[in-house]
Amino acid sequence: MTEIVVQKYGGSSVATIDKIKKVALKIKKRVENKEKIVVVVSAMGKTTNELIKLAEKISVTPEPRELDMILSTGEQVSAALLSMALNSIDIKAISYNAFQLQIYTTNIHASAKILDINAEKIFKSFDNYDVIVVTGFQGIDEMGNITTLGRGGSDTSAVAFAAKTGAKCEIYSDFPGIFTCDPRFNEFAKKLDYITFDEMLELSALGANVLHSRAVEIAKKYSLEMYCASTFSEERGTFIVDNLPEWLEQPVVTGVTMDNNQTKITIYNIPNKTGIFSRIFDSLAKQRINVDMISIVYDEKVAHLTFSVISANREKIRNIITDELKSENSLEFNFDENVSKISAVGVGMKSSSGVAARFFSALDKKGIKILATTTSEIKISALVSKENSGAALKELIDEFNL
Amino acid sequence: MTEIVVQKYGGSSVATIDKIKKVALKIKKRVENKEKIVVVVSAMGKTTNELIKLAEKISVTPEPRELDMILSTGEQVSAALLSMALNSIDIKAISYNAFQLQIYTTNIHASAKILDINAEKIFKSFDNYDVIVVTGFQGIDEMGNITTLGRGGSDTSAVAFAAKTGAKCEIYSDFPGIFTCDPRFNEFAKKLDYITFDEMLELSALGANVLHSRAVEIAKKYSLEMYCASTFSEERGTFIVDNLPEWLEQPVVTGVTMDNNQTKITIYNIPNKTGIFSRIFDSLAKQRINVDMISIVYDEKVAHLTFSVISANREKIRNIITDELKSENSLEFNFDENVSKISAVGVGMKSSSGVAARFFSALDKKGIKILATTTSEIKISALVSKENSGAALKELIDEFNL
Repeated sequence: MTEIVVQKYGGSSVATIDKIKKVALKIKKRVENKEKIVVVVSAMGKTTNELIKLAEKISVTPEPRELDMILSTGEQVSAALLSMALNSIDIKAISYNAFQLQIYTTNIHASAKILDINAEKIFKSFDNYDVIVVTGFQGIDEMGNITTLGRGGSDTSAVAFAAKTGAKCEIYSDFPGIFTCDPRFNEFAKKLDYITFDEMLELSALGANVLHSRAVEIAKKYSLEMYCASTFSEERGTFIVDNLPEWLEQPVVTGVTMDNNQTKITIYNIPNKTGIFSRIFDSLAKQRINVDMISIVYDEKVAHLTFSVISANREKIRNIITDELKSENSLEFNFDENVSKISAVGVGMKSSSGVAARFFSALDKKGIKILATTTSEIKISALVSKENSGAALKELIDEFNL
Repeated sequence: MTEIVVQKYGGSSVATIDKIKKVALKIKKRVENKEKIVVVVSAMGKTTNELIKLAEKISVTPEPRELDMILSTGEQVSAALLSMALNSIDIKAISYNAFQLQIYTTNIHASAKILDINAEKIFKSFDNYDVIVVTGFQGIDEMGNITTLGRGGSDTSAVAFAAKTGAKCEIYSDFPGIFTCDPRFNEFAKKLDYITFDEMLELSALGANVLHSRAVEIAKKYSLEMYCASTFSEERGTFIVDNLPEWLEQPVVTGVTMDNNQTKITIYNIPNKTGIFSRIFDSLAKQRINVDMISIVYDEKVAHLTFSVISANREKIRNIITDELKSENSLEFNFDENVSKISAVGVGMKSSSGVAARFFSALDKKGIKILATTTSEIKISALVSKENSGAALKELIDEFNL
C-alpha cells in the first residue's frame, strides 16, 4: 500500500484564488516527493458564516437538515477549485464530496459524528490520481441526508481520514503550531515543539482555538500523531503525540489559556434538605448544558451555590433556574458575565506536587481574587474577574516559565 | 397515487431572499389546494455565471468534472433555502440534490442527459412532505460524479421529473409565456395561448430564450403538456401541446425569431471534383460543429460555398478550414459576422402553400437582401445583414399578422 499523508487546510488557507494556488504548489512539492496526499479542505474564508447569514434571512430557526444542505456547498466549491488548481500545474487530482466518499455520520445535524469512510475508494483512486481533495466538515447519514460536524469539523474529518487510511495527519492553518498561550493576544506566547494529546484536549476544551477537541480525541484513540503548522511558511510546527519524547525536559505546565465566554451564576440562601441542587443540575443536564466550576459554600442554615457556564447558554439557564426556583421564595440568584476562566495545562502536573499552590499564590501575590476553581490531573482552572484576566495570565506565564 | 405537479422556477425567480419567500407563498396556495408539488429550482440569479468566473480564475480550461462539482452547489443552496422558506410558513417541505434523488445521467460533463430518476423516493417522500424541492440542472453519473445538463438544464430536469412521475409540468420565469417574437426587443410581441411542441422546438433552436430545446424534445416524446407562465403574476401563460385545440384558428405562422450570433462563411473558387465539400463538412462534424444554411453556387469552372454557423465556433472553424484548404492555392474564404438569422415558424405552413413566397417577397419589397436561406416543414429561415434585421422582423410580423 502506498504511503499516504492527510493534510488539512483551514478556511483562511483557501480564502482566495491566490491562496488556493499557493496551497496547490505546496502540495505539488510533496507529490514530487512520491507521497500520495489526501487533502481535506474547509470552505473558503468566511463562506460558512455568510451561508448561515443567508439562511437566517429566511428563518431565524432554519431546519438543521436544510442548513447542513446549504453549508456543505462551501467545502464542495473549495475542494473542486483546489483540484482544478492542482491539475493546472500538472498534478493529477480529483475532488470528492461526502456522498462520493461515503463519509457516513450519525444523523445529528450540525454536530454529526463520523461513523465510517470508504477507504477502499481512496486507495483505488490513488491508482489514477496523486492527490484526492476531500470536502471537510461534512458527511451523509444512512438515509443520504447531508450532515455537518460542527465548528472546526474539518479537523475531525482529517483525523478520521488519517485513522482510516493509516496515514500521517498534518493540520495547516494561519498558526505555525500550538503555543504556550494564545499568540493572537499574547506577544510572549512561545511555540511548542511537542504537546501530548491529553494536554491538547484540555487546551482545546479551554478555548485554545487551534484544533477541534473531537479531532484530538480521535487522534488520541488511534494514537495518531498529528502535526500542526503554518500553511504559508516553512517554519517547524508542533507535533501532538501520545507521550512527549523522553529526551525532552518535561515542563510542569505546557500552556495557559483564557476563556472570556463564561458566565458565573450564583444562587444564594438555598435551604438544606431541599434536593434543590440535584433538581437544578438535572434540568441543566436535560438541556445538554455543561456546568463547569461548581462551588458550594455552607452558611449556618443555608448554602450558596456558584457555578460557571458558557455565556451562550445564559438565557436558557435563566429560564431553567427561574422555573425551578419559583416555589422557593427565599432564594436569590445572580448572573455575572464579567468573568474569565484562566487555566494552566500540563502533563507534568501528574508527577509534580505543589502546582496548584504555585498557581493560586501567583494570583494571590497580585491581589487577584479567585471566584471559583476546578482542577483535573493535568489542569487547573480559575475564574477571575475580566479586568484581572490579562494580569492573571501574565503572572502564570512568569510563574511557570512559559 | 397522489396527483403531482412539477413546477420549475428559474434563476431570476429565486434571485433574492425576498423572491424565494414569494415563491414559497405561491407554492403554498397550491398545497392548500391539496396538490403535491415537486419544485425544480435553478441557482439564485447569476450564481452559475459567478461560479464559472471563479473557476476560470484558477484555470482557463477547468476540468469539466470539477467545474460541474462547483456549479451544482448553486442549485443546492437555492433548493435548501426554498425548503426553509416553505417550512417557515408551515408547509412540510424537503430539499433533495441529484445524488439524493438518484438523478442518473450520461457522463458527459456540462451537457449530460438524464437517464433515470428515483421516482419511488419522490412518491414515498410525499407521505411525509407536501413539497419536494429538487436541484435542477444536475445529475450524477453511474460512478457518482456530479454532472450538469448545460444551459437551461433545469427545464429539462423539470420535464424529466414530470415524465417520470406522471405529473403536470409548469415552467415559471420572468416571461409570462411564449410570444410571437422576443418581447424583450419587440414591443409588438404578442403572447400565445397555445403553441405546439414542433413549433416550440424550432423556436428554441432558433434562439428564442424561453425554454431549453431538450426539455421540449422530452415533453414531445412523452406528449407531456407544458405550461409556461410568469412567476410573480397571475396572468395566464402559454400551453405547449401536441396539437393545437381544434377550436383555435390556426395561424400560418406562430412566431418569428431573430438570432444575432451567426457568422456567414463563404469559400470561393472551389474546383470541381476535388471532394473538398465533404472534407470540410466531415471535419466540422468531427468537431461537433453544426452547419446551418448551406448554399452552393456554381460558376463555369468553379463553385462558391456559403454556410452559416454559431459565432462562438468561429475560431475553431477558421482553423479547420485553413487546415483543410492549405493545399488548395486558388481558394479564398471570407467570414462575415455582420449577419442575423430571421426565422418564421408555424405548423400552419404544412397545410398552407405559398408561405415561403410571402416570406421572401415581404423582405424583397423592403429591399432586404437574403444572403442564405433554409426551410423545414414548419420553418423558414433567412440570413440577412444585421442592419436589416430589425426591419425584416417587423416586415414579417406585419405580413403574418403577428
